Amino acid sequence: MKRTSRDIRTANRYEVLRQIIAESPTSRQELAATTGLSLATVATLVGELLDLDMITEVGFEESAGGRPRGLVAVNASGGALIGVDIAETYVHVELFDLGLNVLARAEETMRPGESRPDKVVAHVAAATGSVVAQAGVEAARVLGVGVSMPGQVDRATGISEYAPNWDWHDVPLLDLLSEHIAYPLYLDNPLRACAVAELWFGAARGHGDAVVVILGTGVGAGLILGGGVHRGVSSSAGEWGHSTLVLDGRLCHCGNHGCVETYVGAPGIMRNLLELSPDSPLLHPGDQTATIDALAAGVAAQDPVAVKVLKDMARYLGAAIADLVNVLNPEVVVLGSWVAARLGEPLLREVREEVARHALKRPLAATSFVLSSIPTDPACLGAATLALEGALQSVGQRTTKRTTLVRSRTAPPS
Amino acid sequence: MKRTSRDIRTANRYEVLRQIIAESPTSRQELAATTGLSLATVATLVGELLDLDMITEVGFEESAGGRPRGLVAVNASGGALIGVDIAETYVHVELFDLGLNVLARAEETMRPGESRPDKVVAHVAAATGSVVAQAGVEAARVLGVGVSMPGQVDRATGISEYAPNWDWHDVPLLDLLSEHIAYPLYLDNPLRACAVAELWFGAARGHGDAVVVILGTGVGAGLILGGGVHRGVSSSAGEWGHSTLVLDGRLCHCGNHGCVETYVGAPGIMRNLLELSPDSPLLHPGDQTATIDALAAGVAAQDPVAVKVLKDMARYLGAAIADLVNVLNPEVVVLGSWVAARLGEPLLREVREEVARHALKRPLAATSFVLSSIPTDPACLGAATLALEGALQSVGQRTTKRTTLVRSRTAPPS
Repeated sequence: MKRTSRDIRTANRYEVLRQIIAESPTSRQELAATTGLSLATVATLVGELLDLDMITEVGFEESAGGRPRGLVAVNASGGALIGVDIAETYVHVELFDLGLNVLARAEETMRPGESRPDKVVAHVAAATGSVVAQAGVEAARVLGVGVSMPGQVDRATGISEYAPNWDWHDVPLLDLLSEHIAYPLYLDNPLRACAVAELWFGAARGHGDAVVVILGTGVGAGLILGGGVHRGVSSSAGEWGHSTLVLDGRLCHCGNHGCVETYVGAPGIMRNLLELSPDSPLLHPGDQTATIDALAAGVAAQDPVAVKVLKDMARYLGAAIADLVNVLNPEVVVLGSWVAARLGEPLLREVREEVARHALKRPLAATSFVLSSIPTDPACLGAATLALEGALQSVGQRTTKRTTLVRSRTAPPS
Repeated sequence: MKRTSRDIRTANRYEVLRQIIAESPTSRQELAATTGLSLATVATLVGELLDLDMITEVGFEESAGGRPRGLVAVNASGGALIGVDIAETYVHVELFDLGLNVLARAEETMRPGESRPDKVVAHVAAATGSVVAQAGVEAARVLGVGVSMPGQVDRATGISEYAPNWDWHDVPLLDLLSEHIAYPLYLDNPLRACAVAELWFGAARGHGDAVVVILGTGVGAGLILGGGVHRGVSSSAGEWGHSTLVLDGRLCHCGNHGCVETYVGAPGIMRNLLELSPDSPLLHPGDQTATIDALAAGVAAQDPVAVKVLKDMARYLGAAIADLVNVLNPEVVVLGSWVAARLGEPLLREVREEVARHALKRPLAATSFVLSSIPTDPACLGAATLALEGALQSVGQRTTKRTTLVRSRTAPPS
């Protein structure tokens, strides 16, 4: 979508708060220097954030030969944010302060057959209630709940349009959740959640163009383009896991053949292993996590089958990541999510080599390849950050006094 | 790269002039309504364009119950722009007025063996001199020359880093051209030239996210994201022709195997035809244009071989365009360049069907597929538009009075 002046004001608000969270305390002058915004713009945005109690004045620093400069810092206790990571086998919920430090965690395990919307909603509601209680925050201080839901989601309507692993179609997820959760709710999918987490707190920070490659059960790419998350016209960009790598190759659940995901998603890796060595003790049928853990251990022990499976995966992945490098010419490619975290450095090394075999020299030379450095669940952190972005986006629509902001929300749950 | 406030001012300047060129005369109020910018911003930008003589005041219109509104229109004779399309077999140069109407054309044919940089530069210089003389414009009125050069180019340094069809490496093209051409020179490649032409004058106008698929000897995708051309960190984005569609498939001149270009570029189509029917009269060995023309005629006459070749091409192209739809989620995909123009509606119909077979439903539903509607050479028009963008970008760096702008350039050629 086209950027309006309103989008630009919002993006600038994000940029200033991001910088304050990253480096507190800081001055308006430093913020102007780092963000490239004018001092007047920074002063206005800092004023808005002060009015919202998201940041506070914390004293002065001497400036060489000038007036002392006012310092501001994030007001960690100025509000709370909740991130919800809905995955195939669990619901993971974290509550954060405004510095995005985790104050409380809750995890609900979902057994097979529990994937009905009402069951999932009950798990999310229970875990959300739990983190608020654990952290002991007043309900009025919760600025929002971000929900990361796999598959195709419609952010505007809060509908899960299509969740392939559960075969959900057009489930009004936010409406169902709002019967149990009275905080403002924001829906997006893990690609965008992880991208925004990397943009605010990870390897994409400070980069205009970055790709966050998500390697889990599903596979996709969160895109940071022009300094912000690229969502596309119907908020479904990033489905690189469903681009064709092997024409007429493996059948994918999306209906296409030869999708990247069918070769480098966890089930695809298991299939690669099965085809290579059907009786391998590395293979734990029906258990993706155990299999990937066994592979990681096998690679560390230089088990030849494990090493071959890693190389095969990297061969597919390298060609597919080279496509992103050639098409988008990003500054950094971040490998994230649980499969990337478990296979770690050996995977990164192989992928670097394989990308070099496929990509054009000029874009390749401009790109660095790293593992995600976010220590906790990036989808939770990202979902909470999306809630923070949501709260910041609505600043202009409400008055900027925090008391009014709180009153304008629906009542907290009893 | 990150967008700075300066980039945003430049983008707004483009947007306002683009709108004035599209709909002259128009008022500041209409411009504000169409662009989403504030009336104050529009008034400032209109003032700059008036100072540059790029637009003029052309009277007033009555507004319902208010003061009469001042009308502005593009000042077609306020300057001239030159677009240069360097291709494998020709150099095509056009001179435009500020309404981007063609005032003069010149074409130089390049014989095999003439691909040395000095030969190419001589052709460009001759054709450029010719269009200026034909149009009878004063040298001082030429605002710039945009040069579209295939392959990887470095816009900032004016170097052709790699031109695969001629095996050029690090040719300082703009330096060589500046020995013969004294107007400001702007270098980019046909992907960006065609994208910017579609954004200003074609099917991408008014769309935030669009993909311009270039189908010629080479293949690529010009990307419009967030309302502007996406170039990537080293200005080499859009190399979708070198993404892997068939892992371990046909060897590409880029060194990779199975690139999209090897199946749907003109030489790839010729190979598809050769493999299907080695003795086909449609095949004109060594002559891409004649072969594609014969195919187009064959399809029109429902020749079964021609129809099969078109369907094969569409099968590859549909899968590869579906990747762009899934990854970028654009509003519109434009098929452009000479192969698309010649195969026309029958190709578009087949491509629509094939994309639907591969793309995810949600992004697919949001995308329309069209042929380029630019009647002339889009690379020439786009190159001239890049020169116009270059002239507009430098507004803030010079004073805004046109006399100063002209004086600050190097002397025109004698």
